[in-house]
Amino acid sequence: MKKIVVLGSTGSIGGQAMQVIKANPGQFRVLALSAGSNARLLLDQAARFGARYVGLADEAVAKACESALPPGCGLFAGANANEALAALPEADIVLNSIAGIQGLPALLAALNAGKTVALANKESIICGNKLVKEAIRAHGGSILPVDSEHSAIFQCLQRGAKSEVAALHLTASGGPFWRMDETALCNVTVADALRHPVWRMGKNISIDSATLMNKGLEVIEAQYLFDVDKIEVLIHPQSIVHSLVEYIDGAVIAQLSVPDMRLAIQYALTYPARAPGEIKRLSLPEVGRLQFYNGNDFPAIRLAREALLGGECLPIVYCAANGKAVELFLEGKISFADIIRSVTHAMQNTPHIRIHALADIEFVMREARRHAAAYFGQA
Amino acid sequence: MKKIVVLGSTGSIGGQAMQVIKANPGQFRVLALSAGSNARLLLDQAARFGARYVGLADEAVAKACESALPPGCGLFAGANANEALAALPEADIVLNSIAGIQGLPALLAALNAGKTVALANKESIICGNKLVKEAIRAHGGSILPVDSEHSAIFQCLQRGAKSEVAALHLTASGGPFWRMDETALCNVTVADALRHPVWRMGKNISIDSATLMNKGLEVIEAQYLFDVDKIEVLIHPQSIVHSLVEYIDGAVIAQLSVPDMRLAIQYALTYPARAPGEIKRLSLPEVGRLQFYNGNDFPAIRLAREALLGGECLPIVYCAANGKAVELFLEGKISFADIIRSVTHAMQNTPHIRIHALADIEFVMREARRHAAAYFGQA
Repeated sequence: MKKIVVLGSTGSIGGQAMQVIKANPGQFRVLALSAGSNARLLLDQAARFGARYVGLADEAVAKACESALPPGCGLFAGANANEALAALPEADIVLNSIAGIQGLPALLAALNAGKTVALANKESIICGNKLVKEAIRAHGGSILPVDSEHSAIFQCLQRGAKSEVAALHLTASGGPFWRMDETALCNVTVADALRHPVWRMGKNISIDSATLMNKGLEVIEAQYLFDVDKIEVLIHPQSIVHSLVEYIDGAVIAQLSVPDMRLAIQYALTYPARAPGEIKRLSLPEVGRLQFYNGNDFPAIRLAREALLGGECLPIVYCAANGKAVELFLEGKISFADIIRSVTHAMQNTPHIRIHALADIEFVMREARRHAAAYFGQA
Repeated sequence: MKKIVVLGSTGSIGGQAMQVIKANPGQFRVLALSAGSNARLLLDQAARFGARYVGLADEAVAKACESALPPGCGLFAGANANEALAALPEADIVLNSIAGIQGLPALLAALNAGKTVALANKESIICGNKLVKEAIRAHGGSILPVDSEHSAIFQCLQRGAKSEVAALHLTASGGPFWRMDETALCNVTVADALRHPVWRMGKNISIDSATLMNKGLEVIEAQYLFDVDKIEVLIHPQSIVHSLVEYIDGAVIAQLSVPDMRLAIQYALTYPARAPGEIKRLSLPEVGRLQFYNGNDFPAIRLAREALLGGECLPIVYCAANGKAVELFLEGKISFADIIRSVTHAMQNTPHIRIHALADIEFVMREARRHAAAYFGQA
């Protein structure tokens, strides 16, 4: 039985991971679970899965629920709770599904402890790439991707040697607006942008999906994870083909399934084995047709490539500036089309520094957010 | 450098194999080539590739061309030439692209000599399954599939455990008539049936493709090659997805490429490595869309499944009766729709025997052809 730590177990990915664990009895022992402040669900999960430890980032909430802990369950509270849980000596695998850049310290803690990390947090690899690679080199940990596209590529890569890879093809549903022109995009409302055609997701990722910034982030993530620099984007509205690997001989290996995040989560948790899951079988005759369009020319994708070519700072700027711009859009302060403008502006104006430590990353992120907002007088 | 023997080098697959060998300089040393009676092309190939031996099944033709042999090139003549070449001690890999059941003795000779065989001849595995498996068990040889569908499955199976396979999905272009009803099918002419929408192929395989008997043969081939009994057929008119493997967790791994047999040939020859080929890159945006329809309910597919369930004789009957029926159709003696009727009749009437030797297979094939013809008074 693999002893597992689920960081962010009360979120969307975390909750689906708990379903996967439940669907595979005898495969996993839940060692620890963590949440930001949703103590009620966390304690409920801890009791049901017999967790040895729980972590709560919010100290006040943690204090208040001490008496409600299941018998024998230890509590880690505060900002460093996730880092402590990520490095538990007994842990075999750590699922990091903390939202946003807050996941980076825990990722580093796990890797510095030599753990295998199932990673559902793209910001932490995009912004933390340099430190992440150093930690892996120094302590021998590893990352298994949980993003459905990256899981697809990871699965397809099992079918050939890295030196034989010609290109990665990341698929994107395209979101609700990919055929719209610039003028129409300016009038897109928050409600429009939150309506994703395939995946039901959180607010921020729905917006990122609509701007294709999410796909740009995934291009960066893919290059960092797989060390392949030829990465193409395909718009594939049905979201059945989750990504493809093109080999030097012209063969293309693809991974397909019904859109269900639990598959990617489960594969990361059971890797290198597969286990029968609760995921619906794919019926291609039912789907009928799969469509593909060139997705390389969207501004968000072009910017992501520029960021990759521009050294270690620009991907961090790309990620952080977008985070700020999406906040401003959700608050009604800038238009949908302004999101890309804002990221572009931040990429042009944020100073480049050498990344040596977490503090450097935090500095670049802060500067990027400031420039993203400044463009619209929102600093 | 792999020392290679190409049996049937003057045919369609053989000729494409020679292109693959030429496109990969330094990878292969051509040890031997063989043909039925096309001595001119064979000697030309032998001279260009520096073959050490050639084989000609037709003894009279062989006699006539003795003086034209390239310097230092040995000649094997007659019915057993292919068997002798298949078992050459120096050979590392034998590509068997002999047409039809004539390929079986050479396949057995290669396997009995413990060789790796790149197999482009489905009849020999379908009819010879029992003897083929015995030869592999006894002498440690192996088969690498060259059929594009089976190559796709073989590629998708790499590094996935066999125990984790839930089903194989074989794709079929559907040929020119798959949406036609029974009445229209009766009026199909030979010229209509030879017009395959995607692959340019020989006469017999074009007809087999139009009846879907080719796909039925491939279902049997796939079960014999991969030992998986859940095999489904998908009609996929674009012929871009060459086949798919469904795993127990719901993940489906597919292999795609432009339709070009050289890819499957090359993969079998370079396996387990891949080599840059001359195959055009696949552009999914250019293809635009991939369509899929249920292909399980065609008579040819149902009959193939019945054959598999009916023991070791019925697949041989299915294969041989079809061969005879296609001959009768090409001669204008029976209608297109009669092909399936003829195979059905032979499957119902050919006596079952135990297969112990080649002579048993030949007996069953002869009986099957007789019954296939008898149904129409053509015996």
